[in-house]
Formats: sequence, structure tokens, C-alpha cells
Amino acid sequence: MNAQPISRFPVPDIADLPKDIAERILAVQEKSGFVPNVFLVLAHRPDEFRAFFAYHDALMDKPGNLTKAEREMIVVATSNINQCQYCVVAHGAILRIRAKDPLIADQVAINYRKADVTPRQMAMLDFAMKVSQRAYEVDEEDMDVLKAHDFTEEDAWDIAAIAAFFGMSNRLANVTSMRPNDEFYSLGR
Amino acid sequence: MNAQPISRFPVPDIADLPKDIAERILAVQEKSGFVPNVFLVLAHRPDEFRAFFAYHDALMDKPGNLTKAEREMIVVATSNINQCQYCVVAHGAILRIRAKDPLIADQVAINYRKADVTPRQMAMLDFAMKVSQRAYEVDEEDMDVLKAHDFTEEDAWDIAAIAAFFGMSNRLANVTSMRPNDEFYSLGR
Amino acid sequence: MNAQPISRFPVPDIADLPKDIAERILAVQEKSGFVPNVFLVLAHRPDEFRAFFAYHDALMDKPGNLTKAEREMIVVATSNINQCQYCVVAHGAILRIRAKDPLIADQVAINYRKADVTPRQMAMLDFAMKVSQRAYEVDEEDMDVLKAHDFTEEDAWDIAAIAAFFGMSNRLANVTSMRPNDEFYSLGR
Amino acid sequence: MNAQPISRFPVPDIADLPKDIAERILAVQEKSGFVPNVFLVLAHRPDEFRAFFAYHDALMDKPGNLTKAEREMIVVATSNINQCQYCVVAHGAILRIRAKDPLIADQVAINYRKADVTPRQMAMLDFAMKVSQRAYEVDEEDMDVLKAHDFTEEDAWDIAAIAAFFGMSNRLANVTSMRPNDEFYSLGR
Amino acid sequence: MNAQPISRFPVPDIADLPKDIAERILAVQEKSGFVPNVFLVLAHRPDEFRAFFAYHDALMDKPGNLTKAEREMIVVATSNINQCQYCVVAHGAILRIRAKDPLIADQVAINYRKADVTPRQMAMLDFAMKVSQRAYEVDEEDMDVLKAHDFTEEDAWDIAAIAAFFGMSNRLANVTSMRPNDEFYSLGR
Amino acid sequence: MNAQPISRFPVPDIADLPKDIAERILAVQEKSGFVPNVFLVLAHRPDEFRAFFAYHDALMDKPGNLTKAEREMIVVATSNINQCQYCVVAHGAILRIRAKDPLIADQVAINYRKADVTPRQMAMLDFAMKVSQRAYEVDEEDMDVLKAHDFTEEDAWDIAAIAAFFGMSNRLANVTSMRPNDEFYSLGR
Repeated sequence: MNAQPISRFPVPDIADLPKDIAERILAVQEKSGFVPNVFLVLAHRPDEFRAFFAYHDALMDKPGNLTKAEREMIVVATSNINQCQYCVVAHGAILRIRAKDPLIADQVAINYRKADVTPRQMAMLDFAMKVSQRAYEVDEEDMDVLKAHDFTEEDAWDIAAIAAFFGMSNRLANVTSMRPNDEFYSLGR
Repeated sequence: MNAQPISRFPVPDIADLPKDIAERILAVQEKSGFVPNVFLVLAHRPDEFRAFFAYHDALMDKPGNLTKAEREMIVVATSNINQCQYCVVAHGAILRIRAKDPLIADQVAINYRKADVTPRQMAMLDFAMKVSQRAYEVDEEDMDVLKAHDFTEEDAWDIAAIAAFFGMSNRLANVTSMRPNDEFYSLGR
Repeated sequence: MNAQPISRFPVPDIADLPKDIAERILAVQEKSGFVPNVFLVLAHRPDEFRAFFAYHDALMDKPGNLTKAEREMIVVATSNINQCQYCVVAHGAILRIRAKDPLIADQVAINYRKADVTPRQMAMLDFAMKVSQRAYEVDEEDMDVLKAHDFTEEDAWDIAAIAAFFGMSNRLANVTSMRPNDEFYSLGR
Repeated sequence: MNAQPISRFPVPDIADLPKDIAERILAVQEKSGFVPNVFLVLAHRPDEFRAFFAYHDALMDKPGNLTKAEREMIVVATSNINQCQYCVVAHGAILRIRAKDPLIADQVAINYRKADVTPRQMAMLDFAMKVSQRAYEVDEEDMDVLKAHDFTEEDAWDIAAIAAFFGMSNRLANVTSMRPNDEFYSLGR
Repeated sequence: MNAQPISRFPVPDIADLPKDIAERILAVQEKSGFVPNVFLVLAHRPDEFRAFFAYHDALMDKPGNLTKAEREMIVVATSNINQCQYCVVAHGAILRIRAKDPLIADQVAINYRKADVTPRQMAMLDFAMKVSQRAYEVDEEDMDVLKAHDFTEEDAWDIAAIAAFFGMSNRLANVTSMRPNDEFYSLGR
Repeated sequence: MNAQPISRFPVPDIADLPKDIAERILAVQEKSGFVPNVFLVLAHRPDEFRAFFAYHDALMDKPGNLTKAEREMIVVATSNINQCQYCVVAHGAILRIRAKDPLIADQVAINYRKADVTPRQMAMLDFAMKVSQRAYEVDEEDMDVLKAHDFTEEDAWDIAAIAAFFGMSNRLANVTSMRPNDEFYSLGR
């Protein structure tokens, strides 16, 4: 089964990649023990690779009030509605690890309204799903609901930007037929 | 986390149940090592319980050309579109076990079009999804596609009936807020 | 026009059916003056037939606060949204008879919001339609609305289970191309 | 039940109406034995009344290849998808009378794909439904399908214009809460 | 580019048209400096032409509380959701002129929720969009919202009728592939 | 009207921005004669700003078979379906300028199927819209259609990536209530 292609498009050899990209990939490999396929699939386009991961890091690694697990919840919930196999499987693994909870990722993916999350996290996910599915209807009332759950204006931006960025990522993964690494399925369970 | 309610409705004690229902539940417990919550949640209504499981068994345990794993694929794909946490988690576990494949359930749930299935299984899932989402448009052409993949008329009935039955089950699980047992999440991985 | 097939699948002769099924069908025929096609179409699969009607009776004939007419309203409203010819026509007839109202079935089928029903029945139908179309969004607020209209928790289960069961029935009828008996169209008008 | 209002808006007395409108209404009453409520509801706005019925007559009474029954089929199928009680009930009656078929209206309303119509009529209804629901996607291929069923370019215009006109009518009826006359429900059965 | 056809259907010569229609067209030409294509495209069907413009004038030229610009806002917002090129471009031009605002038409077309309109106009557009997209759900609460913004019952009828009439117009324009005159694109900017 | 806020979030003074960002903004201002609001709105988050524009440039300024006008067509068509005022207005202006065609932007925005584009461009827009709205259904057949119109595999990536990137941009603009500069409305007309 490992012989399955990981992309509909050509996948470069790490040896052929620009040095900065190869280094980032090798650093991830060292840390994770394997290279998540998103790195190899997107490396087909070095400039886009650099911008994608710069954006990713700017949203997922920045300081802020949202915990790392909460950010992953946003990714997992919106990616399942967008039917993105790569993002649900890979970020589901990261969510399990960040939350130290083996159940949370599947719960949030399938129906976040039934997940073991706090009311505050539920409001966060309601907003993220609206941004993902009907951003044109977002209005001041949505901001008020977030504020009532002690989210700041900056938190609202974070939630929206993560939902929007992974909406892009979901579309890229579906078009490239990006295949999740087998390793992700069982991580953190 | 085990303290979470498994239903929005009252859940009976096994000791208070009609004998036939209690016996079925205890038999499952002996075989599986735990009682899947669907048995306890639906036992609140003994007559419906009996009809539900008689129907379930008539579709899932009957002889026929669909393998047990294929039947579970239908359940898993349609249940995720219906956002049913219980059915995706519980039948995902059964699918992994039946297919002896730790990856297949998540693949089929999130986007069956990208799953490691045969073209014949893909046609089966396309039809099951149409029954689930737009049964009113099912027509002779759908039957022809199935026949072109060597499905018989009886197989078409099986696929449709499984998709329809679990469409009911998905709605019951969502309304009752039926909680998947923690055990299911890791089974067969 | 009576020469039209009543199912896309083979329809058994009553004489060839298992005795319990033949008896049920003959009893219905004696009571109604004709055999509703759902009995003949589903008799192609005896085990599923038995489970289907056991479930049907458990929901439609059980005691409870919902009147028989109200249960049929749920069937008729949800079946039209699912574009199920058999269920709207057959249960429309039953609704007219149960409610002793020749207009109610067409009203409820086409747009229940404009039907001659009580505010309590309107709340019942709002909930049934939500279960039918977006069960994954059902939450505690829906329960509160029902309670405000004097529905008990058990009534909520009844409404949801009827909507869910006929959602299955609608899909089976559409896939089998189940044809309503001509008799139903004019009954109770 | 007759005490139910027939419109959310004021309904004029025939005696107070402009002479041409009163005369049209009395002529209909003489012919049909009752005044269909659409005349009274729209008479609240005499200029719109005149334009509405001029348009109606230009489409429904004009010569052309579509039979009167076929035009009513278009009205009935599209009006049910638009959940318009008045149009389905009133034009269902007219369809039964025009087609001399007591079953056809309910069949076409609920799921025209299962109705006792010819393949040519099915193509007509497929096109009418596309105009009603997704007119922005209508293209040359749709025209080719119609031509393959011996519809002329003028027939295509007729089908589209009827679907479009009753789409307007459905919206007006739903906003005014236009109530169908009791008489329509049983006419032609 | 002017060589592009303005309709999928035959377009009559003005010289061949019935006198009343030719006169109306020539009057428009004199006033506007060009003949908007809707006149030529619909003149293919003189009776429908007369009814269409009688209806149009009854709604758009009648006295009432809605300003001419507000009526055009309704046309522009609903026509873009219906993806009608002719109506957005032509009525966008009229809206810019009526409102003496070069920006308002594009704002209202693309996302009226972000347009430079008053809260009262926003409520008007919310209602118009509901009539256009989900008229079957319009209820007393919608009327109350309008009243809270000082709209009368007659204003509600006006808004609904304009949304409904242009819903018809949008479908006709999409089916005929009615081409907007080049002149409209820049008028009022 | 210029007093309208350009973002729901704080907008930084150029003087307070990191030097690289201020320089980019001043360069744009020099070239265009004004600062497009997207620069000011996103500058609230410098790291995201840098990643956003790096990504933008990697897609919109890269060499490749798609002309600059074709890339803008993708932006305009998908942004209107996502009801994004900023992107339709700003990129509509750029499209008019790139294509040297004052009509093309409004045509493509409202209903690209009726726009003055080549069959090859129509296939490009069909694919871009599918990526935007149903990327999970993209499959090998879509690639074959593109190839039949002489698009390479790399072109397919470009189309998809532009649709995906602006899907993110549309969501950010709607959540921030990003206001298009008045200048864009009339540019290139």
C-alpha cells in the first residue's frame, strides 16, 4: 500500500530541492521521524512552498490566546467539512498529541457539536465553520458572541485566518490528491 | 471522561430490561469485551430496539455478494456525510477489523473518492452516497453503472438498504447524542 | 395504467411468501380492501419486511401523546421534502382519514408552514424537518422549544424516530421505484 | 375552516374593484362556480393584477406544441420544489382536468421522475426544473436535448417562460400566504 | 464585440413589430440613446412583451415609499445571486444613476451586507433576498422586522413583488442568453 | 463616503510598519497612485502580510502558460461566488486593464458561462469554480478536460492554486470587512 502515489503531480527528490527547502524538510524528518507528505507534494513548487509554510507558521506558531490544540481543532473541523483526507488525518494526529487526548480529533472532525470541548471552544468552532462555509455572512453579531466567550478581537482574527488558510490547504490537497502518511493514522491514539 | 452521558434520554439498567434484550446485550458484551452504547441507548425503547437490530442483522449479516468490509464501507462513508459521530467511530472500528486495514476507515469516512478501494468499490460507494443524499434522483442509469461493475440487482438492493438504514441510524444517534464508546477509537488500528 | 410495475425489483406472489408475511398481507387486504404496494415490494426480502413493519408498528401504533394524525403529519411533511411519491400519497391518505380532514395532507406535504395546524403541531413539524434534513445540528435548544409546547422528552423521541424511520422508507421507495396504489390518491377526500 | 384568511394583505370586495377586474373575476366565477383566491388576493393591486393575468394568458392560452396538460405539468412540478401551496393545489386540479387523469398531478408534484409521463414530457420537466432551480447553467446542450425530443426552439421558450412566470407566482403566493380554495383539492379526482 | 448575438432566439427587426411595441422601443431609444436589448429580445413574443413591461412599470414606476434607487437595489442584489448578467449590468447602471453614486451598484451586487446602505435598506435587502431564495419560509416575523424599520405592509408587498418579478426576469435572461448592451457597463460611473 | 472604515480590525499607520512592509506599500502607491486597502488591512499582521504577498506573487507573477488576464479571470469568477466585495472590485479592475477590455470583468464575475471568453478559457473557469466550490470531487476526468483544451499539468496546478489562494483571500476580506478603494470601481472602464 506504501506504493500508492502521494500526489497527482510530480514529486521532487529531496536531493534536487533548493537548499532552504531541503533543510526544512530534513529538520522535520529529524523531529518527526518521517517526512509528512505535504512537504514533498508542495516542494514541486518551491516559491509556493516557502509562502505556504511561512503563512502556516505565522498562524500556527505565533503567540496568542488560542492554545496549540485549539488551533488544531479549527483545522480538523473545517477540513472534514471540506472532505480533505490529508488535513483531517495529519492534523487529527497533531491535535491528539497537542491535547493529549486520543479521542478528541475524531470527535471534532465528525461533528464538533458533540465533541468533548468547552462552551468557549464550541463558540470558536462555530465561528470557524461559518468562516469556512459562509464567510460572506460574518457580521458584528459573530464578533459579539466571541467576545461573550472572552475572545479578543485578535483571537477572532486568528480563528478566521486559520479557517481561511486551511480552506486553501484543503483545496490544494484535494486537487493534488495528497496522500496522508500512514504514520499519522495511529499517532497519539 | 467516562462520566460523560451516553444519551440525551434515560438509559436503562441492564437488570431492568426485558430478558431477550438483556441477553442480546450480555452476548455482545461477552464477545466484544464491552457493551457498545447503541445497545444501551436504544434499549430505552424495547420494541424499537428489537426492530432496529432485526433490521440491522437482516442487512449486515445476510449472505450476499458484498463482503462484510464492503458493507461497513457504506456505513462509514454515508455516516460521515451525515455527521454522525457514533456511526463513524463504531463502524470505522468494525471496518478496520473486517478489512484488516488500519487506514481504510478514516480514508472512506473523510473522502471515499481518495480511499484505497477498488473501482468496483468506488462505484458501490458512489451509489450509496447518492441514495443517502439524493435518492429521489436514482434511476435506471445508476443500475447500469452498478451492473457494469458486476453488481447484481440484489447487490443494488443491499447497497441501497444499508445506506437507507444507516441514514435512519445516523439521525437517531444525532438526536439522542449517542456517545461512541472510548474503546472503538483505537480498535483495529 | 394499472399495468405499470410497482417496483424496479422482482415482486413475489403472495402464494410464494412465508406464512407470517402472507398472513399479514391478507389481513391488511381484508381491512383496507386492497394490498398497499409497500407490502408486496418489501416482501421481496422477508427478513427486512419483518423488521420494517415491526419498526413501523413500534412507532406508529404505540401509545403516546402524539395523535395518530400527528404522526402521519410528520410522515407526510418529511416525505415530500425527500420527494417520495409512495409515502406522500399513501400516508397522505391515512392522514386525511385519521384527521378527518380532506385538505390537511396536501397542505402539510407542500408547505407545512402554511397548513391548518396548531402552533404546537407546527413546532412538532419544525423539529421533524430538522431531524430529517439537519439532524447533526439538533441540540438542547430544540428540546426546549418542544418543552415550551408541552411536548415531553418521550414525545421528542417519537417525533425524531418517526422522521428518521420514514427517511429510510423514503430512500427505499425511491430506489425501488415503489408505485403508490391508485386507491390512495382519492381516499379520505 | 372557510374562516381562514386567504391573504396576509387586505383583500378587496369585488364591488370596490375597477370594472375590468370585477368583470374578469365574475366571468371566472361563472365558469368555475367559485372565485379562485389568486384573483382576490392579487386584486389588491389592480395594475399588477392586469399584468399578471395578461402574462398568464399569454403563456397558458397561446397556441403552440405544448398541450394544456403539459403546461400545467410544468407549473405543478416547479411549484412543489418552491413549496407553493396555492400553485400546487390549484394547478394540480387543472392538470387533473386537462389530462383527464386523477393521479398525474400528485405524481408530478412529488417526484416527476416517477410520474406516468412520456420520455418527451420527462425531458420537458427536466428542463423546466433546471430553469426553475439553476437557470444560470442553462446552455446549448439543454437545447440539444430538447431538440432530440422533437421540441422546437419556440417550445423551449414556452417551457422556460412558464417555469419562470410561476417561479414569480410561487414567491408571491408564499409571501402573501395565499390560501388555495377548498374546492381545488378534490377537483378532477 | 458588437457582433455577438444578443439572444439565443430570433430577434425581430423593429420595422416588423406591432406598432405599439415599436413605438415603445423607439421612445426608449430616444430617451436613452440606445435600445436596451431586453426590449428586442422579448419583442420576439409580443404578448409576453406587453405583459412583461406592464408588470415592470406597475412595480418600478408606481408611487410608494420605496425610492427608485431602493427598487433598483433590490433588482441588483437578487439578480447577482441568480447570476443574471443582463439584470446586474443594466439595472446596476440604473441604480448608479438613480442613487447618484458610482459605487453602490457593484457593492450591492457582490455582497449587499457590506454595501453603503442604511440599516433600513439593509433590512429591505435581507427581506428581498429571502423572497428570492427561500420565499416558502417567509413568515410574520419577517413582517415584524420590516415594520420595525418603518416599512408599511404595502412596502413589504412592493419589495416582495420586485424580488419575485426580477426572479422571473433573471431566468428569462439566462435562458435566452440575453446580452447586456455595452453602454450599460459604464453608465453612471 | 471616504470616511468609511476599511477594516473591522485596527489599521496601522504606514509610519509604524516594519521597513520591508512600508517599502512594499510605498512602491505600490508610487506605481498605482494609491494604496490598495488590502495592503493596509493585512499589515495589521506583518508576518501574515509577508506570507500572503509572497504567495500572491508566486502565483500571479510567475511565468507560465496562463496569461495575466486569465489569472485575473479566475480570481474574479471565484470571488463573486464567494461574495467577496474587495476581490471582485479590485481584481475586476486589474482584469479590465490586463485584458484591455472594459466589459470582461463584470461578465466573468456575474456569470462566466455567458462571458466573452474562448472555449479554452471557459474550461479553465469551469475547473477553477469546481476547485472553489467542490474541490473534494476533483478527479482525473477534470484533468482530461483540461488537457483536451491544451492545458498542461502545470497549468492545472496554477488554476487550482489561484482558486484556492483567493478562496482564502475572500474569507479574510469578508471577515475583516475589507473595503475596496473607490479608485478600483472605475479603473480600466
